[in-house]
Amino acid sequence: MSEIETSLIGFSRGDTSGDPFYASNPATGEQLAPAYASASDAEVDRAGELAELAAGSLAALSGSEKAKFLRTVADNVEGIVEDLVSVVTSETGLPEPRVRGETGRTSGQLRLFADLVEEGSWVDARIDHSIPERQPIPKPDLRSMLRPIGPVGVFCASNFPLAFSVAGGDTASALASGCPVIVKAHHAHPGTALAVGQAVIAAVKSCGLAEGTFSLLYGGGRTVGQRLVKHPALKAVGFTGSRSGGRALFELAGARPEPIPVYAEMSSVNPIFLLPSVLNERKEEFALGLQGSAVMGVGQFCTNPGVVFHDKGEAGDSFKSTYAELMSQAPASAMLHSGIRDAYGEGVSDRSGSSNVEVLTVAGDGRGAGGCEASTSAFATDARSYLGDASLADEVFGPSTLLVACEGREEMLEIARALEGQLTASVFGTASELSDSQDLVDILETKVGRLLFNQFPTGVEVCHSMVHGGPYPATTDGRSTSVGTGAILRFARPVCYQGFPPERLPKELDEENSLGIKRVVDGKRG
Amino acid sequence: MSEIETSLIGFSRGDTSGDPFYASNPATGEQLAPAYASASDAEVDRAGELAELAAGSLAALSGSEKAKFLRTVADNVEGIVEDLVSVVTSETGLPEPRVRGETGRTSGQLRLFADLVEEGSWVDARIDHSIPERQPIPKPDLRSMLRPIGPVGVFCASNFPLAFSVAGGDTASALASGCPVIVKAHHAHPGTALAVGQAVIAAVKSCGLAEGTFSLLYGGGRTVGQRLVKHPALKAVGFTGSRSGGRALFELAGARPEPIPVYAEMSSVNPIFLLPSVLNERKEEFALGLQGSAVMGVGQFCTNPGVVFHDKGEAGDSFKSTYAELMSQAPASAMLHSGIRDAYGEGVSDRSGSSNVEVLTVAGDGRGAGGCEASTSAFATDARSYLGDASLADEVFGPSTLLVACEGREEMLEIARALEGQLTASVFGTASELSDSQDLVDILETKVGRLLFNQFPTGVEVCHSMVHGGPYPATTDGRSTSVGTGAILRFARPVCYQGFPPERLPKELDEENSLGIKRVVDGKRG
Repeated sequence: MSEIETSLIGFSRGDTSGDPFYASNPATGEQLAPAYASASDAEVDRAGELAELAAGSLAALSGSEKAKFLRTVADNVEGIVEDLVSVVTSETGLPEPRVRGETGRTSGQLRLFADLVEEGSWVDARIDHSIPERQPIPKPDLRSMLRPIGPVGVFCASNFPLAFSVAGGDTASALASGCPVIVKAHHAHPGTALAVGQAVIAAVKSCGLAEGTFSLLYGGGRTVGQRLVKHPALKAVGFTGSRSGGRALFELAGARPEPIPVYAEMSSVNPIFLLPSVLNERKEEFALGLQGSAVMGVGQFCTNPGVVFHDKGEAGDSFKSTYAELMSQAPASAMLHSGIRDAYGEGVSDRSGSSNVEVLTVAGDGRGAGGCEASTSAFATDARSYLGDASLADEVFGPSTLLVACEGREEMLEIARALEGQLTASVFGTASELSDSQDLVDILETKVGRLLFNQFPTGVEVCHSMVHGGPYPATTDGRSTSVGTGAILRFARPVCYQGFPPERLPKELDEENSLGIKRVVDGKRG
Repeated sequence: MSEIETSLIGFSRGDTSGDPFYASNPATGEQLAPAYASASDAEVDRAGELAELAAGSLAALSGSEKAKFLRTVADNVEGIVEDLVSVVTSETGLPEPRVRGETGRTSGQLRLFADLVEEGSWVDARIDHSIPERQPIPKPDLRSMLRPIGPVGVFCASNFPLAFSVAGGDTASALASGCPVIVKAHHAHPGTALAVGQAVIAAVKSCGLAEGTFSLLYGGGRTVGQRLVKHPALKAVGFTGSRSGGRALFELAGARPEPIPVYAEMSSVNPIFLLPSVLNERKEEFALGLQGSAVMGVGQFCTNPGVVFHDKGEAGDSFKSTYAELMSQAPASAMLHSGIRDAYGEGVSDRSGSSNVEVLTVAGDGRGAGGCEASTSAFATDARSYLGDASLADEVFGPSTLLVACEGREEMLEIARALEGQLTASVFGTASELSDSQDLVDILETKVGRLLFNQFPTGVEVCHSMVHGGPYPATTDGRSTSVGTGAILRFARPVCYQGFPPERLPKELDEENSLGIKRVVDGKRG
């Protein structure tokens, strides 16, 4: 390994002279070799130009050709799993089984999109035949389908170094649509990014695709990402990270001469609403499940359940004690990097100091050898205090839960109405209680991307029905999902062909439906 | 008729004390009675609150119930067609046949959306069944579908007082999705807005829907629209108008604490590219068609063809003379209002004064009795000048065409690459020439919502395949269409239900598919 690694600008490497930065091992604090050179302005621009040059040929690929490419990327990523175990664990502190699992999720995701584009119906093909004799004017022949939006910038997520990073969901869905991708590596796991980036580029080469299909940019600060978002070639942005970071990119993209969409998945406390039977009939089981979901991955999942609304009273008090006990037993673990750990510490400290907040458990501020260890925390308050203090609705990213005691059903509805946008909301209870709570469900539906019943929100299934999205501030674009096959729709736009000769139409729109896809023909869905 | 008309705030009327404004007849200049009172801040807020209150019950309507409502609106609008002929012609100067035609287009559009939601498959229902025995963790039951985005603000278009105003395409598609609508009337046709608004409210009442389903706000300036866009209840905005107006609303909506999408359809010069055979073989026929498209509706269609790229040379010179002659023969007509006429005058004057621009015909600055009459104009330049002067790419809204002579194919490709986003681009030539011009088609596809071959872009068919949209600055959201059934997708967002008991699922997602809609079940499209 060279002493300084550099960006992957298509098939070339960046210059070693850019500002260097290093990853470090969150478990040990050890600075990891090598250094990574931040991309220069010229390198960012070059990646943009290459992507622009590649866009046409990528857009012209058939579904089968795109599927072959995505499967090659999947194979290549799986092929380096042993390397990944070593580099990901050292850069993120995530345990080996998680790295293996996330590698499988990454390749599985790529293959799911491969199947989707090979089958081909996702393009929403629509055909309206001409009616030359129509009065007062003839009806023309019109045919439309989704086409790739153009080059996409992808920002790696700190909390999914594989499944939402270099070859993760944003990249897979953008490539599947036929868009070139420029990835900005996360500063905390540059080595992971390099290994996966090289796997992607090997696939670009072996499939004979254009050089600009993929680039990977390093940047220690914000400059590289900002320049990328402002590059005129870029047509959309995918991001997973903090609310402030996502909002900043959203505003930067909106201020461009040509504004572009930003799909930022940002912040969510994933509220859980308990109907009375839960604490009355299965308090321990629920508390155990909640604790498992809350501490999973050191609380660093976007769908971590951060707040639970329950009825006031004896059962509620007993639940708080049970939960406090369970959370205090969970061992401290290293978070992903010191920035996340710092933010967690501040969040816990602010919450501990809030008036009207009861500290159920905070196991101290020990940070271990690597400076990144975090203990679990749990807090309690009541609905009036929660509604009166906006900071209590903020996310404390990490293994922390806030229990909120409500004075019956009306207060729960009031809280539901006051919620900000969320990735998920969960309701626990009996089917009959749920049936009596349609008003609550109707409110929650307007606030979230995914509604769960008697299940915890962590564990986001990659499938066709998944919606990993939701109104702001869960995301900057509540019309979208970043997980599941629906994610491809973020990177596509409809194009209509009017009066085109049959032989110049895309295959998806030909008269004989040679691809055998589902289409809407003269208003009838096939 | 009362002396001062006021906003329709649900089933109530606004106060008469707001700043009054008047429409005027663009053909005569006559100020029209009555006055219209601008909505107060409290009235705008009240419309927002009512819409928020109505959102839940509207979202709960079945497709059939929504269809019934949309058809009632259509019937009611058709029922007042004689009144509309009188008020629309006096407020806009549009001729009676156009008013009758546009009324039919408006009701037809409402009925098309009624059919769409009654059939029901538009919701993109997806079901992934659970696999309880899956290792290492069970697969949950997941089901998703599109749900209404929430209250929508609609800004009436000056150039479509019916089909893109109070009960026009934006309103129809938003209501079809299940969203309450708050319309901001256009200041130039408030009487038209009132007649149609009352027809909508009559339908809300006769269908027994919530009061906040629909409101209509008057405002002489920008204050009312701005307050509407900033209202926290609002979840999306539809707009048709100027580039500066659309961009301002886009930025206002993006700066909200909760940013919301703005679908602004703004500005497009709808370029036409001529392949060599056109001027060599059918110059007169093409010139006549172009003139018809360019002067239609006094050039006030969004899809007006503003610029034509043709080969340099004798045929090109002869085409310029033919076209100049044709355009100079077109009679002057009243534009929609004095603001549009002023802007046209400035555009023509700027273009006339441009160096390197040849004035083919400008019939003078006469404005007729009403001050709104405009004569046609035509200009010519060459590709180098066009590429060197960004102002030549700007829209001159009105009956004006710019002919641009290109030094062969390479210069045409260069121009295509340099184009801003457009609603449409058209290519004229033989099928064999088109086949040799795939490079041009590929570039144009990335720039437009609709690509035409041997057809003029005016005349936007309302159907399933239509894409009336395109990259910025054609619209602020190139992923959308504002005409055709695809327009409903702008006002919907996906919601996923995980682990829900069968009886609590929306009908669209039930196991037996009781609605008989097309769905994706375990990845297979039905």
